[in-house]
Amino acid sequence: MDLLGLLNINQLAVALSKLNMFPYFDAAHYIVSVMSLREQPGALDVSRRSPFACWFSAMLYCFGGAVLSGIIMAEAPIEPLANSTNILFASLMWSVHQFNNSPHPIRLVLTAMKEVTRTWKVMGGVTQASRKYKDSLFVMIAVGWAKGAGGGLMSNFEQLVRGIWKPETNELLKMTYPTKVTLIGSVLFSLQQCQYLPIQRPQLMLLYTVFTVINKTRMMLLGSSFSLLAVVESTLYQVLFARPVSCSPLTNQSNSSSEVKSTSCVTNGSTPPHEQDKKKNE
Amino acid sequence: MDLLGLLNINQLAVALSKLNMFPYFDAAHYIVSVMSLREQPGALDVSRRSPFACWFSAMLYCFGGAVLSGIIMAEAPIEPLANSTNILFASLMWSVHQFNNSPHPIRLVLTAMKEVTRTWKVMGGVTQASRKYKDSLFVMIAVGWAKGAGGGLMSNFEQLVRGIWKPETNELLKMTYPTKVTLIGSVLFSLQQCQYLPIQRPQLMLLYTVFTVINKTRMMLLGSSFSLLAVVESTLYQVLFARPVSCSPLTNQSNSSSEVKSTSCVTNGSTPPHEQDKKKNE
Amino acid sequence: MDLLGLLNINQLAVALSKLNMFPYFDAAHYIVSVMSLREQPGALDVSRRSPFACWFSAMLYCFGGAVLSGIIMAEAPIEPLANSTNILFASLMWSVHQFNNSPHPIRLVLTAMKEVTRTWKVMGGVTQASRKYKDSLFVMIAVGWAKGAGGGLMSNFEQLVRGIWKPETNELLKMTYPTKVTLIGSVLFSLQQCQYLPIQRPQLMLLYTVFTVINKTRMMLLGSSFSLLAVVESTLYQVLFARPVSCSPLTNQSNSSSEVKSTSCVTNGSTPPHEQDKKKNE
Repeated sequence: MDLLGLLNINQLAVALSKLNMFPYFDAAHYIVSVMSLREQPGALDVSRRSPFACWFSAMLYCFGGAVLSGIIMAEAPIEPLANSTNILFASLMWSVHQFNNSPHPIRLVLTAMKEVTRTWKVMGGVTQASRKYKDSLFVMIAVGWAKGAGGGLMSNFEQLVRGIWKPETNELLKMTYPTKVTLIGSVLFSLQQCQYLPIQRPQLMLLYTVFTVINKTRMMLLGSSFSLLAVVESTLYQVLFARPVSCSPLTNQSNSSSEVKSTSCVTNGSTPPHEQDKKKNE
Repeated sequence: MDLLGLLNINQLAVALSKLNMFPYFDAAHYIVSVMSLREQPGALDVSRRSPFACWFSAMLYCFGGAVLSGIIMAEAPIEPLANSTNILFASLMWSVHQFNNSPHPIRLVLTAMKEVTRTWKVMGGVTQASRKYKDSLFVMIAVGWAKGAGGGLMSNFEQLVRGIWKPETNELLKMTYPTKVTLIGSVLFSLQQCQYLPIQRPQLMLLYTVFTVINKTRMMLLGSSFSLLAVVESTLYQVLFARPVSCSPLTNQSNSSSEVKSTSCVTNGSTPPHEQDKKKNE
Repeated sequence: MDLLGLLNINQLAVALSKLNMFPYFDAAHYIVSVMSLREQPGALDVSRRSPFACWFSAMLYCFGGAVLSGIIMAEAPIEPLANSTNILFASLMWSVHQFNNSPHPIRLVLTAMKEVTRTWKVMGGVTQASRKYKDSLFVMIAVGWAKGAGGGLMSNFEQLVRGIWKPETNELLKMTYPTKVTLIGSVLFSLQQCQYLPIQRPQLMLLYTVFTVINKTRMMLLGSSFSLLAVVESTLYQVLFARPVSCSPLTNQSNSSSEVKSTSCVTNGSTPPHEQDKKKNE
């Protein structure tokens, strides 16, 4: 690639980094969020019995990141409500899309656009954290993650709003694809913020956005969850955490305990984590 | 009504708006709250096994509004404990009334007085929100509602303190009368705060207080939950949310899903919401 | 005891009060916390299936006090992550000790050292509260308690991270030994802070530390939970809360209610609370 090509990519990156999420990308985020909520088992029924709980649940899907990052940073979780335009806009999307399916090609485009908003949200969280906690890498990672994947990380409590309680699973026990990819993004943007990465922010934003959009589109088109993450992850898991089954005298005790049964865990420690991706990939 | 009558009503409204809740109305609020806690199934048993959990639960009933509005506004939820007088006063009411029933006529008066405190709490929440978020109608409504109906909105977690967990229901799925009437009050006071209503604050306080006191007293006397809200609500529901049953291809799928069964929902979408009032009307 | 002895004790107290918890005492706290987490039923299995949830759970054990006191004081619960040294140190202890048992004598020493950190944490909480809420005894007690026993008080939600949900019990319904002894410490340090106690802070720190270390060591050595607290507590309970069983017309109703059955409570109100200590004495 010659100098001109590099220049063009840099210009593209800078142009992208100045892109405004409102209204088109935000709209895509709200629509895709509402459609994934609608596909949750029992959600349609709740929307008939209690439109308010359903609306509140949809707002947690749309603004969960701002709520969760607000809680952990001791900033008001009510903050998203202060932006009336966004709330009304999301509510409009909710009232239009909660009973209607988009055709597949349109949904593909909307999902790709939603992936773009992820970059902005993660970066917003990292920047927000770095203002209050300078040089604190872990806080930046956590807040960026919370802001980008808040709805998923709070899913137990979002379900509770709809009267559903599934304590045996959560996004930390079984990370879904969006939670994982957001964590990776948050790590990268935090490292960049602390100047540990030899890359400018616009370039990183371009790279990460291209990665998430392509990966997600491929997952939707191929109808499977095969993603670039799975290989990396499986290797990492084997290196870091795989241990012989007989390493601890407490194993048998814990296997026979009632808690394990009640949570119906898969007790086979060697299941690679990427298999869990297949269930939920919004 | 002639000019003299209008003057008198205005004077009454202004006098009412200067009424001090402490100690008589606060006491009524604490006593009625403790008595409703006592009537929860299992509460008496908890008060024997673990007086501390029972006391904590009672404080959540008495100060739930301040705790919840504190959480959503990122102000300290511990704040109510800082007012030692109120805490000691509420604890005294708790220790006196947790095992004793008041005669019905006295309870009627106390409940009416408790309804009066609702006006002050909702208005306090709206004012608190408007200091931080000027002109933000939604935040005012939410904080006023949280402050006035906090105990109810947090009921899942208040029950958890007593070892009871009922995820299949909550105040958003099935709003009870006090939650609804507080929401209406919060909307009205927020609209007044933003000057969308052609009414002064003292007049609105008088009107709302008279409405809540009369409505609640009638509900207690007639032993039913027939309230002025039900008609309005039923109409609103039919207009806004009633849809033909066959409008979505996902209906059958969601009806047969395991989540719906496990939460034992009433799947008949046409039940008007005001029937749910009959169960709990504290 | 002559003047020289008193002088020496005062000097010892002052020297103790200047003791630095980092790194040795903090390390002991982290190790003992990780080992108690490991002994929870099902924890080992979780550490295989989801190392991240297990690490997060361990961090809640280690830094639960800071998280909980942050939440109730509206300070950022993410704060512990800002101290990278402590987080890395705790994570190191977690990765080393999550699969290994320490021999009993070493564990005894570590547990005694962990008890020392309790004094510092409770006092830190009381001081933190007194900066924001001067003269407010109740807030100081609550924050000191939350800071010293946060992991325990949040145990329902810590278990939820690991996919375990036990709503029928919590630390308020059934206080364990560390929660109780922390509450006593918090009351004492708060009274001292408000100058209601005729004792200097270093002396109180020495006394409380000696009390907790000796009491805990005795409990570990004798393999029982017989502690100095039990006698005091049993007397207090009888005086304050024991009532004749037939005092309330609601008793039968509450005994036969479904909630009581579903939470499988012991309905015998006369069980003295110190018997509950035997189950968990971390």
